[in-house]
Amino acid sequence: MTDLSVSACALAVEPGFFRGRGIDELQQAMAEGGLTAQDLVRHAGAAIERLNPLLNAFVHVDIGAALEAARELDAERAQGKVRGPLHGIPVAIKDNVDTSDMPTTMGAAHFLGHRPAADARCVALLREAGAIVVGKTLTHEFAYGPTGDRSVQGASRNPWRTSQITGGSSAGSAAAVASGMVPVALGTDTGGSVRVPSALCGLVGFKPTHGRVAAEGVFPLSTTLEDAGVLANSVQDAQWFMQALSGGAIAPAAAAGTDGPRVAWVPNAPFAIDDSAVTACARAAAERLAGGPLREASDVTRHARALQSALGAIQRAEAYEVHAERVENEPAKFDPEVLERLRASRGVLGWEYVRALKERARLQDEFARLFRDIDVLALPTVAITAPALQQRSVAGPGSAGVRETLLGLTNPWNVLGLPAITLPAGWVNGMPVGLQLVAAAGSDEALLALAASRWQAPGN
Amino acid sequence: MTDLSVSACALAVEPGFFRGRGIDELQQAMAEGGLTAQDLVRHAGAAIERLNPLLNAFVHVDIGAALEAARELDAERAQGKVRGPLHGIPVAIKDNVDTSDMPTTMGAAHFLGHRPAADARCVALLREAGAIVVGKTLTHEFAYGPTGDRSVQGASRNPWRTSQITGGSSAGSAAAVASGMVPVALGTDTGGSVRVPSALCGLVGFKPTHGRVAAEGVFPLSTTLEDAGVLANSVQDAQWFMQALSGGAIAPAAAAGTDGPRVAWVPNAPFAIDDSAVTACARAAAERLAGGPLREASDVTRHARALQSALGAIQRAEAYEVHAERVENEPAKFDPEVLERLRASRGVLGWEYVRALKERARLQDEFARLFRDIDVLALPTVAITAPALQQRSVAGPGSAGVRETLLGLTNPWNVLGLPAITLPAGWVNGMPVGLQLVAAAGSDEALLALAASRWQAPGN
Repeated sequence: MTDLSVSACALAVEPGFFRGRGIDELQQAMAEGGLTAQDLVRHAGAAIERLNPLLNAFVHVDIGAALEAARELDAERAQGKVRGPLHGIPVAIKDNVDTSDMPTTMGAAHFLGHRPAADARCVALLREAGAIVVGKTLTHEFAYGPTGDRSVQGASRNPWRTSQITGGSSAGSAAAVASGMVPVALGTDTGGSVRVPSALCGLVGFKPTHGRVAAEGVFPLSTTLEDAGVLANSVQDAQWFMQALSGGAIAPAAAAGTDGPRVAWVPNAPFAIDDSAVTACARAAAERLAGGPLREASDVTRHARALQSALGAIQRAEAYEVHAERVENEPAKFDPEVLERLRASRGVLGWEYVRALKERARLQDEFARLFRDIDVLALPTVAITAPALQQRSVAGPGSAGVRETLLGLTNPWNVLGLPAITLPAGWVNGMPVGLQLVAAAGSDEALLALAASRWQAPGN
Repeated sequence: MTDLSVSACALAVEPGFFRGRGIDELQQAMAEGGLTAQDLVRHAGAAIERLNPLLNAFVHVDIGAALEAARELDAERAQGKVRGPLHGIPVAIKDNVDTSDMPTTMGAAHFLGHRPAADARCVALLREAGAIVVGKTLTHEFAYGPTGDRSVQGASRNPWRTSQITGGSSAGSAAAVASGMVPVALGTDTGGSVRVPSALCGLVGFKPTHGRVAAEGVFPLSTTLEDAGVLANSVQDAQWFMQALSGGAIAPAAAAGTDGPRVAWVPNAPFAIDDSAVTACARAAAERLAGGPLREASDVTRHARALQSALGAIQRAEAYEVHAERVENEPAKFDPEVLERLRASRGVLGWEYVRALKERARLQDEFARLFRDIDVLALPTVAITAPALQQRSVAGPGSAGVRETLLGLTNPWNVLGLPAITLPAGWVNGMPVGLQLVAAAGSDEALLALAASRWQAPGN
């Protein structure tokens, strides 16, 4: 039975301070003197203290250091200097991204206690923009899994129903933002690792065009597929965050034109199974956004096999390269499931990888042509709502693996390097559903502007 | 016994018209009316008719079409239009490069009778510059071998001693220029395929920085390692040819500064065996060019293992990708030796290829630093003189394979993508020896200018 009523839309936990508070609202309060950055950090600290035992979002927290940073930023503000929209805003950083003042573990026993010498470039940019890092959030071990329930620090839990996964690999970042511990968080996305947990936790999640955000200091999973991105409560917050994260390369922009956007709907098959309630929820959101009937992007499906084939070879060869020596020398330190995936990745042949790179280039040309006639592709972000922790198969007539189902609608866009966003579309049986929009390479600003101007939060 | 006397310096065949005639001399003769482009084509045709049965340099010749082109170019000149230094100059094109008006076979049974729809971009550029294509020259089958004695059209023979190989894979181009059939020819170089036959046949051979010449229409061996280049009688001729081939990207330049160039000598070991007579001949030429003692580039040797490892993985994975379906479906059409090499290339793993790309990037950084203190690396182009046709091992205490020996001193620079030139250094036992100079990435013009200003033809 599908329940789409608003009464279903309640978190399973009492949310923290930042739930429902946008960055603009926080900035206004700081500008008017009603709140200081130190207040915001204390609110974050209180929410983390109360909620983290339930959700396991953060694997390291340093409120003391955050308060120190907040004091300096408050002093700057008192002197009339405001760095920008992130000035004094608490943020969380996924634990596969280097921080000079906090451990960075990749969710892996191999890196317990590891202290990077320097901030990742994207963390440095956030700090320069005035963001305050309050802690590090749980990542699926080495970011190599979309469930967020396998890491040396255990599993994150979904604030909408704590028996369910957040999705991953940016699991803790999703739990932290969805539960109101922090207003916004950094994630990384190689096959859906920002968008999947954002969708399953009812957030906005944005992955930029490949290469738009500096990769330096981000622990690699598959370097040619992955990018840092953002998990946020609103498109506006995501825009402010991406502006800082990209060093200004992705600036907030106005939506182009006044006509309805050209939105083409991509069918789930053959990318993933089809849960009709989830698909209907996402499609209805797409129709509201388009302001009219959708085109059918049926020509996308004929590339599905080539996309999956290229993705598989690229992702596995690149992932094994990162871990070859660890798999050889320290296999017992891995989570068994991650180890099994890595070992299965070793067998990709060199020529198959080279062929996959060629195929990717060909497909990128195909999609560049496709985007001449449409503004965005639309489809569910994830074909199902959040399954239970450690669940590994989806029940029903079209039985499928959880991993493949979680990633099937997001990873085609990684192989193409396209910008993609997930927007909260509604709920099915009380669990969030995401609408995914995908745009042409390099049109990050237009995609964000379109979402900002036309998307309405559901159930309000 | 080593004979370095000038009396050893004679071709084994009566040379064709273009032996010892530079492009500038031919242009002057055409400008003064003493020769026409049609005369040059007829001279090429006569030389080919007489010499090709001995040397097997050309696998396809079309003097009729060349005369047609020559008539048009002569008419242009009569109207005062001269396109540039290649206006009316007969050239030969290696048979792995597409020509719209001649077959392009790759030296392989799979492509016998194959007619490309269009000229390769580099051929189109040569024609736009006024060059006249008189024919296609033998390539080692699919350019996958440095000996030039395995192709569906047989073996090319060395004009200095016809029992010996030209070297390859640009075998026919080397035989055609060295014997005076044409003044200059196009080759391709993936591990030494321009430089090796140039050195073994006593020519100037130049391979540009990777990517400087358009690859479109060149049948790939290993796309990230290979570049089109030139085989010529002089550096000046090579400069004119490269200017056209690169669409002006590599223009002739004046040598920088008046001081002696900073030349660092690279020891053969651990890259290849050391034939003391060959090494002494090349080193003496380097000292003449430097105008003084050489530095020792001993720090280069510590990268030898990493260079060879990266090269092996990259070359094999890329080569197999090109041929995977042919190896599977039409194995019997391959030369057995080429098929064996291809089959051995299949096993490179994807992660090893990815690792090799990373290693290459690291090594490129290392060498960029190294070239801050020196202008060129110098070493023999090939560690030995031309072995016999079908010879596959080098005799002597340091016994080694012919293929590894031919390529050992040239292929490190392909993996780094560096520009390199071979210059005739002298003779050992009557067979030519090449001096190889290698420069920093992007310094093609400076390398050519240095060679043009400081190199003296040996034995004159």
